[in-house]
This record gives sequence, structure tokens and C-alpha cells, in this order.
Amino acid sequence: MKKIAMTLIFLCLSATTLADEGMWTLDNFPAAAVQEKYGVNITDEWLDTVQRSVARLDSGCSASFVSPEGMVLTNHHCAMRCISQNSSADNDLEANGFLAANRDEEIACPTDRLSLLIDTVDITEKVAAATDGMDELEAAAARRKTLARLVEECEATSELKCEDVTLYRGGQYWLYRYERYEDVRLVFAPETDIAAFGGDPDNFNFPRWCLDMAILRVYEDGKPLATPYHLDWRQEGLSPGDAMFVAGRPGSTQRLLTVDDLKFLRDVSFPAWLRRVAELRGRYIQYATFSDEAFRITRAPLQSIENGIKVVSRRLDALHDDDMLAHKLAVEADLKKRIASDPTLAAMVGSAWDDIANANEDYLAFREDYLFIEAGAAFSSDLFGMAKRIVRVVTERDKANEDRLRGYTDAEMPRLRQLTLADRPIYPELEILKLSWSLDKMREYLGPDSLFVHQILGKDTPETVARRLIEGTELFDPATREALWNADRKKLEASDDPMMRLAMAIDADARILRQRYEDDLESVTDKAYEKIAAARFKIYGTDEYPDATFTLRVTYGTHTGWQEKGADVRPATTLGEIYPRVTGSEPFRLPASWSDASDSLPDETKFNFVGTTDIIGGNSGSPVIDKDGQLVGLVFDGNIHSIGGAYWFNNALNRTVAVHPDIMLRALGAIYGADHIVDELTMVH
Amino acid sequence: MKKIAMTLIFLCLSATTLADEGMWTLDNFPAAAVQEKYGVNITDEWLDTVQRSVARLDSGCSASFVSPEGMVLTNHHCAMRCISQNSSADNDLEANGFLAANRDEEIACPTDRLSLLIDTVDITEKVAAATDGMDELEAAAARRKTLARLVEECEATSELKCEDVTLYRGGQYWLYRYERYEDVRLVFAPETDIAAFGGDPDNFNFPRWCLDMAILRVYEDGKPLATPYHLDWRQEGLSPGDAMFVAGRPGSTQRLLTVDDLKFLRDVSFPAWLRRVAELRGRYIQYATFSDEAFRITRAPLQSIENGIKVVSRRLDALHDDDMLAHKLAVEADLKKRIASDPTLAAMVGSAWDDIANANEDYLAFREDYLFIEAGAAFSSDLFGMAKRIVRVVTERDKANEDRLRGYTDAEMPRLRQLTLADRPIYPELEILKLSWSLDKMREYLGPDSLFVHQILGKDTPETVARRLIEGTELFDPATREALWNADRKKLEASDDPMMRLAMAIDADARILRQRYEDDLESVTDKAYEKIAAARFKIYGTDEYPDATFTLRVTYGTHTGWQEKGADVRPATTLGEIYPRVTGSEPFRLPASWSDASDSLPDETKFNFVGTTDIIGGNSGSPVIDKDGQLVGLVFDGNIHSIGGAYWFNNALNRTVAVHPDIMLRALGAIYGADHIVDELTMVH
Repeated sequence: MKKIAMTLIFLCLSATTLADEGMWTLDNFPAAAVQEKYGVNITDEWLDTVQRSVARLDSGCSASFVSPEGMVLTNHHCAMRCISQNSSADNDLEANGFLAANRDEEIACPTDRLSLLIDTVDITEKVAAATDGMDELEAAAARRKTLARLVEECEATSELKCEDVTLYRGGQYWLYRYERYEDVRLVFAPETDIAAFGGDPDNFNFPRWCLDMAILRVYEDGKPLATPYHLDWRQEGLSPGDAMFVAGRPGSTQRLLTVDDLKFLRDVSFPAWLRRVAELRGRYIQYATFSDEAFRITRAPLQSIENGIKVVSRRLDALHDDDMLAHKLAVEADLKKRIASDPTLAAMVGSAWDDIANANEDYLAFREDYLFIEAGAAFSSDLFGMAKRIVRVVTERDKANEDRLRGYTDAEMPRLRQLTLADRPIYPELEILKLSWSLDKMREYLGPDSLFVHQILGKDTPETVARRLIEGTELFDPATREALWNADRKKLEASDDPMMRLAMAIDADARILRQRYEDDLESVTDKAYEKIAAARFKIYGTDEYPDATFTLRVTYGTHTGWQEKGADVRPATTLGEIYPRVTGSEPFRLPASWSDASDSLPDETKFNFVGTTDIIGGNSGSPVIDKDGQLVGLVFDGNIHSIGGAYWFNNALNRTVAVHPDIMLRALGAIYGADHIVDELTMVH
Repeated sequence: MKKIAMTLIFLCLSATTLADEGMWTLDNFPAAAVQEKYGVNITDEWLDTVQRSVARLDSGCSASFVSPEGMVLTNHHCAMRCISQNSSADNDLEANGFLAANRDEEIACPTDRLSLLIDTVDITEKVAAATDGMDELEAAAARRKTLARLVEECEATSELKCEDVTLYRGGQYWLYRYERYEDVRLVFAPETDIAAFGGDPDNFNFPRWCLDMAILRVYEDGKPLATPYHLDWRQEGLSPGDAMFVAGRPGSTQRLLTVDDLKFLRDVSFPAWLRRVAELRGRYIQYATFSDEAFRITRAPLQSIENGIKVVSRRLDALHDDDMLAHKLAVEADLKKRIASDPTLAAMVGSAWDDIANANEDYLAFREDYLFIEAGAAFSSDLFGMAKRIVRVVTERDKANEDRLRGYTDAEMPRLRQLTLADRPIYPELEILKLSWSLDKMREYLGPDSLFVHQILGKDTPETVARRLIEGTELFDPATREALWNADRKKLEASDDPMMRLAMAIDADARILRQRYEDDLESVTDKAYEKIAAARFKIYGTDEYPDATFTLRVTYGTHTGWQEKGADVRPATTLGEIYPRVTGSEPFRLPASWSDASDSLPDETKFNFVGTTDIIGGNSGSPVIDKDGQLVGLVFDGNIHSIGGAYWFNNALNRTVAVHPDIMLRALGAIYGADHIVDELTMVH
């Protein structure tokens, strides 16, 4: 029913070159198109500086180095995990913000980690050779082993960390080599009230007034990391019509999915997810009314849930757009027709589309068991997550590296260790809330007659079981977790910790479900998408960009507003416009530090702005960069239309939303008295 | 994606005569088809007894007279409102059940009312004459006035109460004449633990063990109503394969909706509703953990919400069934083709389908404003509902009867009065919970820049506003409500009750939205469906049944199980099978009275059973009747497939779920010691 004006896109099946579309890998950046459209020459040097300056926050965000001494700019919401891990009832950094007066006061982010891409190696041929002529199951196993082996070999040759990356849904395989930093500290964070001004109501909206920034610093061997490559600030920012670039880690797009896979999201995955998580949202909101402390500890997880609900809701809207589906069908029909007309291609691709559709159909038979028991939907608890990781790590690490479950190779152990052992607050009442909710949903979806439900709940209610597990476990203590981490399987089996016992008890069945998922769904669709990708390359060439994979991409566009229901949306907001929106109540409340902002900051200070760059979740924290490689903004959101960007890009409507450099530097100085930071950011190097 | 095996239905566009499909009005009951299929002769006398014995509970259920002295059988969940209105922390009838030892102990149901259909009058011609040659807007106004006038004239001629009924989505208009009873009392209710054994997890599932029954009694002039027409019990019930009949008030089906209207439900209405209400569910569940009293007062509304979520979720699944959509498209294409081939019909129908699609498209522009401000989604509060009714009643009753807003004619005043003034408990904390949730959703959906949001919230949070309204209003007191009910508009305007002021403040805008809804959507679709219905009659004849309209219908079928994933589901459960399912915890807990049930009741006592009769929500409380007109069961649910029955009927899968008469009579005697009730129910009259 929902008809967004998608006419432009609908008219041309291959619109890439007309629109500012594309999340480009650096080896394939369309410099010629940019030159033609914007008259800007993107040089290899420009790209190289960007690659060396723009990092990944491994928790799911982008970031950039902005001083020669390891200072990192990202979003407040990307630093939220660190901020809330360092907050307490007496020292509420979420509410009050944080500023380190000097480097000694910079505080550790226990579960954060930063990765900087150094170079990439194409291993497509090697993977193809390893799987040549195999059926889906053999190919899946051979692919997994080959990738594990190549990563292992890669890490053996240098200090760099290696990751395998699948691009174009199997069209290409790569090794990405990273510098990795595990000592990340918090330098500055504003109050949540100004970082997320407008809260969930304004999330994904524009006009907007959010100082969604935070500053971290990377340390190495106890000292600030030397970062000769970093971005310089251009405080005046862009003018409307200027070319702009965003470099960062778009997390995941589904633009190359088959129509059947899109329908699966629309009809199966999203509706059930929304129903479950909207209920959790209600539980959090109601729990937060208990007390001030309940409100405080609920704030960060609730913000994350509400963001997720908005994203999935809008993706569902996009999938319900008849024009979108018609467009996708037309694109797919075009590709199928071209394949059919070439006997070699036709033989290569075979029944790939049907294979995917059939695998989805087969998946329905065990999808809910898999989702709840192996993928964790039944066990929404940080402590259960730790218990499960410990069980898996202890079991897998005795095997040869390439024989392990994906996710448990040597290369991945440091991250698993950090996530499991890092000391941070875990709130028992929230754990009980989440776990009782998820156990209840398990019973709802699997049904009271499910053997899993009998095994896990027995004759008790989800609430009782959750309380018994959380009140009985000793995994709150990092030392306990470390002892278990270092134990062997036999010792784990002797543990009488109820959470460990649960994780042990379901492990065998969960592995069976995982195997079934990999064999019946994943291996089939991976192989099918590999074939489709190969055909796409033959037909359309390699001048296309791959779906987002949380790896480094650059996108280009221009600083401009858009038209909404016939009215112009301006390209930027100014400080003066925020005051009429202030209500004094959450989420439209200014923090105390801002109450005199009008005395110290000009009303015309640019606050937030938009542009046509093609981004998606994961790009949060990405720098906006101008043609000269200078920092002219900090991406923190997209407009509401950008959410449909998961499936296609609409140049007329999709917009990146960013914080302007002027408000960042001025607020640091005039509001927060952080002149030492401003100096470090803006000194001429 | 979801492909339920609908092959049978898919093969034949007009499957009515093959399946036990149809919710038949009594004037059009397919006795010949029943004779042919089941060898049973349904006489006019049989139908007459059914009509005189099967009543409507105006709150949304069905019921039947089961003794000569006004005793009424319905479901526990249909009496839940009355039960919870009569419950308190000290006297929890929901938890403990209720049994009146004698008639003096029978307790009033303050907001219940019972209607018994006496006869029906076809007024299609009169309505057609009144709207002849008019455009949509004129026709809508003329239709409303004509119906109001005909109802008024009808009520002037006798003591009977009259209602207008639209059948076949405008194909026919009728007057239904009722006896109406406003003094309804509770005689017996079992404990919720056995009435709703299995709770939400088992809701809409089978096998099942629920004693979902309650007994009411209708009084007239302070004395039990004499009910010479009533149903006699046949305690042994049906044998598999026996013909069975259900008479009751199916609430609403959408089988005659256009494909565009179905897509509107799928893509627009249902996803947003589920997202909102799942969040409310979470708030209730979390609130219920506060205290025993919080649990008690939350139980009834939570049960209702969870039922709604299950229904809408499954309807959404049904709408996502590609086969269903293909079937609907084929049916629609067939009808369109036949119309196109007949120039007279084509001229009559015109652009009806496009008119509906365009009206839906136009509706999107103001749908959310309408939904939240006029349809009440922003104001989820019993007290607000009362305030709004008072404002509307006081304003409308000064106008001529036929000029009033629909729903406010003289004929409807008694019900409005009862709903507004009846004395029953209203819990401030639940009111605050619901209202703050709905105000928050208003802001989420209309956006923080909506003028309505500004007007209603000002600079406060939804929580603050809700608390201020509920803590400030005096509408808790029935005497206050009555004084306002009796006041004039000027006096209302002088009220400083905050809830009354809110209802007054939004009334003008809400009326504008209502007018727009009626003019832009309703009048267009009413007219279009009228045309389509007329064409259907010309093409397919009148041997079809109309969509359900919460009016008396009879459906036929047979007592049989079904096949689920290749396995047989048996047609009935027995008492002995419940014990292995008992866990001791909600919702699989037996009440104390049942702990010795195995001593006093044979294990083989039939408990619940299923059959192929075509039912839908509103049929709850309907009697299952055998060929001889005897009561052989009490409908309380459908199986999970029956929910898709909103859109089509699948004989292979859709099942009615009912309580067996044997467990009802035996439990009354052996468990509850209610021999006086059993005697009244089973005495030979």
C-alpha cells in the first residue's frame, strides 16, 4: 500500500551511475564518476589517508583518528556501552557526561576494541580452487576450512590481524589485514540529553539537534598511540551543493538478495522479531518507572532496543512498498533472462533461485528451534552469553583450528576472551527481566509441548527459572569466569553453577540445530548466491559495489536537503532553532551545561546537516570528509527514508544525517571548557 | 512464504458447497445442503427454537438460555468482565471462582446486557430508494438518516429494541428486533486456572483442557426471566462423524474484502497495531511483577490483550500466505471479468475497485491522526472513554435523532449510559499505565512536531500528563459521571475536571477527523461495496452467506479432528490426559478444587472437542447443537488455523473448539457441589 515516490528508480533498472549510490570498496572506487558529476579528483593519496584514518569500533561502529596522538572521534551512541559500563548511581556519566581533564583521567572502555585496515588481498581464486566441482555441503566445509587456514597463515606472517571477507554475496573472497588496538579509553562524552536530544521520537528524523559525539583515545603499551595519519578539521564545514564523502563501516545491506529472501524477511523474520522485541521494550519502560536507579540502568539498553524497533519497522514498511517489490522483481527477471539466453551461464547458475526458495521453505521446519535454542533468542542474558561462550571455547580450542565451529578460530579468541572476561557492571534485575521475557517467548513460539521447553522450564514459570539462574550463578565475578575459561571440558561438566549447567545441557542439541542450519540453509544459499554473483559479474561487469559487510567503504554525494510531501527540508540546522523545541522534559530537555548556551555560542552555529551519501547502520561514527580530505562532519544517523536503503537507494529521499564540526568544536570549548581537547584537535601538525 | 496446504480451496473458486463453510442467516439457511451432506433435516421449528434460545452478550459474545428460569450458559472468558468487576484483593473471584448458593447470592454484572433476536425485516429497498442516484457523500448522509429514522420508527411500534444491520457489505440492509435485558447476574464461574488452563500458550491450540464456562441468569423486574425457549442438554455429547451446528454471533469476517483492502490490513493496519500492543503487553507483564495486587488487577486485561495479539498475528500470517492472496486475486479477477462482459453490470459497478484503492491511498494522509485522536488510540483509559462519551452524548442529544453522529441515536443511549455510569472498579495505576503508553505511542506515530502532540502533551512527558489526568479527575465516582451526563454543554464547558477538559479540548478536531474519515474513506468504500455486492447477487445469486456482523448465524459441520503435519489430531480430549500437563505453575496449574478430581470424576470424561463448523471471534459462548436441537457443547475457541477464517475457510484445517457437556455437568456436581444448578439445567421441563 505504501507508495513512496520511487518513480525515478523504478524507471531504470540499473540506476547506479545516475544516483549517489554505492558503498564502494577502496580498490574499486568510482573516481571517474565522481570527477564527472562533482568535478572532484579523488586521488590514491586521498584514499590512502582515508584508509589510514578511518577505523572500526569492533562493537559495531565507525570512527576516525583526529589527532596525532591517538584521539578518536565517534558518536556518543557508539561510546554508550563504555559510558554506561563506567556509570554508577553515584557517578552517572550517561546523565552528566564526562570530560577527562588530562590523560591520566581517561577511563578504560572494557569491551571496546578498534581495528584499522592496513591492506587487503583477493583470495577469490584460492577459495574457488578449494571448492571446485563440489556439491553444496562439501563446498561449505571446504570453504570454511580454507578461509580458516588462510587467516591462520596470514596472521603467521606478520603482527597484523587478519579477517576473511565475503563480497558480492560470494562473488569475491578477501583477506583484510588490520592493526588492532584493545586499549581504548574515554576522553569526552556530552550528556545524553544533548547527545540524543529528541530521543526515540526524533531518531531517524531531520531537522535535528544532536551533539552525538564522543572522543576516545587509543593506547598502546600504556601510551597514547602515535597516529600520523588522521583527519584535520575544517570547522566551517560544507556549503550546500559541495561534494561530500563518508568513509566508514556500513554494517549490512540486502540489496543483492533474491526476491524470495526479501519476502522471507517481510513475512517471517521481521513480524515475529518486532512482536517479541516490542514486548521487551514495554517491559523495560515499565521497569524504569520503579526507581531512579531502574531508570538509569535501563536507559542504554532501551535506547538500543528502540533504535532497533524503528529500523526493523521501517524496513518492513520498505518491503511492503509495492513499487519496491515490482522493481526487485523486474531486476531479477532481467538477470534471469540474460542468464537464460547464454547456455554457458545457464548451466553455471542452474536452479540457484529455486534452491534459495526451497532452502527457505525447508528452514521453516526448524527455524524457531534454531532461533531460540542455538541463535540465543530464548536466553536473553549477558551471563548466559558468557556461559555459552565458555562452553564453546573450551570445547573448540582442543580441535585443529580449521575444524572448529566458525567464530572460534585462534584469530577470534582474543575478542571472545574480551567479551567474556572484561569486568563491567551486570545488573541482576535487568538480567532477570530479559531472561524471563525470552524464556516466555520461547514457550510462546515453540509451544508448551516442545521438548526444549520441557527441558528448560520443567514445571516452573519462565520468571521462576530466570530468577533461579540469575540469583544462583556466580558468573557475575570475572575471576569465576576466568577460572572456567581456563578449565577443561571435564571441569566444566563438574560445575554446579546453574547458568553453566544450562549452557552445558543444551549445547549438544544447539550444535545439532546449528549444523542443520548450516547444512540445509546456509550451504545451499551460499552456493546459490556464489553462482548468481558470478553470473552478475559476467553480465554487468565489476563496476558495481558489493552489499555492505561492516568493512571499509567510501560513499560520495552532496550536501543538500530533500523534498518531503512537497516542502523543502533544509540541508542544515542551527543552534538557535533548538530552543523552541526544548520542553524541560525527556527527551527534549537540555542539560544544565547548555542552559546558558545562547550566551556563549552564536545562534547561527550550524548544528546538524544532511547529504546524499549512501550509508546504513554501522556507518555511525563515520567522518564526513571533503574533497581535500578534511573532516567536515560526523555521521550519526540517516533520515527516515534511509532505512529502506537496506534494499535500495533512492537519491531523491535517502539522506545521511551528521553533526557539524562547528558545533562540535564550539561546544567543546564554550560549553565544556575542553580547550585542551580543542587544541589537540585543531593544532597544525 | 508461509504455505499452508490450501490446495483444495485453491482449485475451486466457489468452494462453498463442498465445505462446511458459511455463517448463515436463519432466513437463508442451506437446509437442502445439510440434508444432502449429513442426512439431517433442519426444520423451521429447529431454527425457531435456536433463534429463541441463543442470545447475544452485547459486550461481544454469544450465549444460550439453558433453563426455563433465565439461566444462561456462556464462556468464563465472556463473563470475565463481570467476574473481575466483582473481584477485590480480599475476594478474588478470578482466582477462586464463584458459586451462588441460591438466587439471592447471584451478583450483578454492571456492564453486561443481553439481547435476544425476535425477528428481522428486510429494508434494502427502502435504503436503495433513499439513496437512489446520489453521489457517495449524499448517499452516505441519506443512508445514515434513513437507517436512524427506520430504527426510530421500529422502536415506536413496540417494546422491542431495533438495530440496523448491513449484510453482504451493502448488498442488503435489515432491521433486527430484539428483546433486551439489562439485569444480568453471575451464578457460577470456575477458577481461571481451570477455565483457561494452558493460558496464552494453549490459546487457539488443541488438544485442550479448559472448563471455559460460566453461568449467568437474566432477571426482569427483579425476578428470574421466564425462558420457555431454551436448550436441553445431551450430556453424552456427539460421536465422531455426527453432524453438529453452532448458533451464535460471529463478530466480523473479511471474506468479501477486495484484495486492496486485504493488503491494507497486511501492510498498514496490522503491523502497526501489533507493534503498539505488544509493547503494552510487556508493560502489563512487568507491572504485574510489582505485587500480588498488581498481578490480580492485570490478569483480565492481559488475557484480553494476549488473545488479541495472537489473533492479529495469525491473521497477518494468513495474509502473508501467497496461496491465499493468489486465491483472492483469482476470485476477484473472475468477478471483474464477468462484470466486464455485461455492459449493464459494468455501468453499474463502474470503478468500484479503483475507488476503494484510491480511498485507501487518500486515507493514509490522515489515518494516524484519525486513529489516535478520534478513534482513541492516544487515550487508552476507561475514564477518558467515559469523558468522551459524556461530551458526545451531551452534544448530540440536543440534535434531531437522525442528524446525530452514528452511535448516538436514541436507540443507542441506554447502552452508552450503562457503559458510562455503571459502578465498577477502575484502578488508577492501570489507568496511568495504559494512558501513558498510549500518549507515548501518539507522540511516536504522529511525531513530536504534531500540533495534537503539542496540544495534549505541552512540555510534559506522556507519563506526567497521564498521571496528572488520572490523579486529578473525579470521574472515578459514578455520581460525578451521572451529574455530568445530566448536564448541558455549557456546564461541561465550565468543568475543571482535567479529563473532561481534555475530552472537550480535542472534541472539535476529533469531529473533523471523523467527518473526513466518513467522507473520504467510508462513504466511498460503502458505495463501492454496495455496487460490488449488487453485481455479486446478479452473477452468483443469493445462495451465499454474508460476512459476519455480530448478528445471529448458524453454521453446520461435523465432529471430527484434523491432520497436522501428517499426524491425526484426535477429535476430543478426556480428563485423564490433563494430569501429565499440570506443572503446578501458571498457566498449567490446577486449582485446589481440582486436586482430587481424579477421585470424583472418571478419567475418560470427555473434556474439550473439535468440529468443522465455521466460526470466528464473537462465537465464544455459542452452544454446539445437535440435529435434535439439544445442547452438546459450548464453543470457546477455534484452533490455530481458524484464525485465518477471517479471510477464507479451509475445511481440512479450520476447527471449532468446544467444552464437552459431560465435563460441564460432572464438574458442576462433583467438583463444585452445585447440584442445585445441575438440577435446574437437567430437569425435564
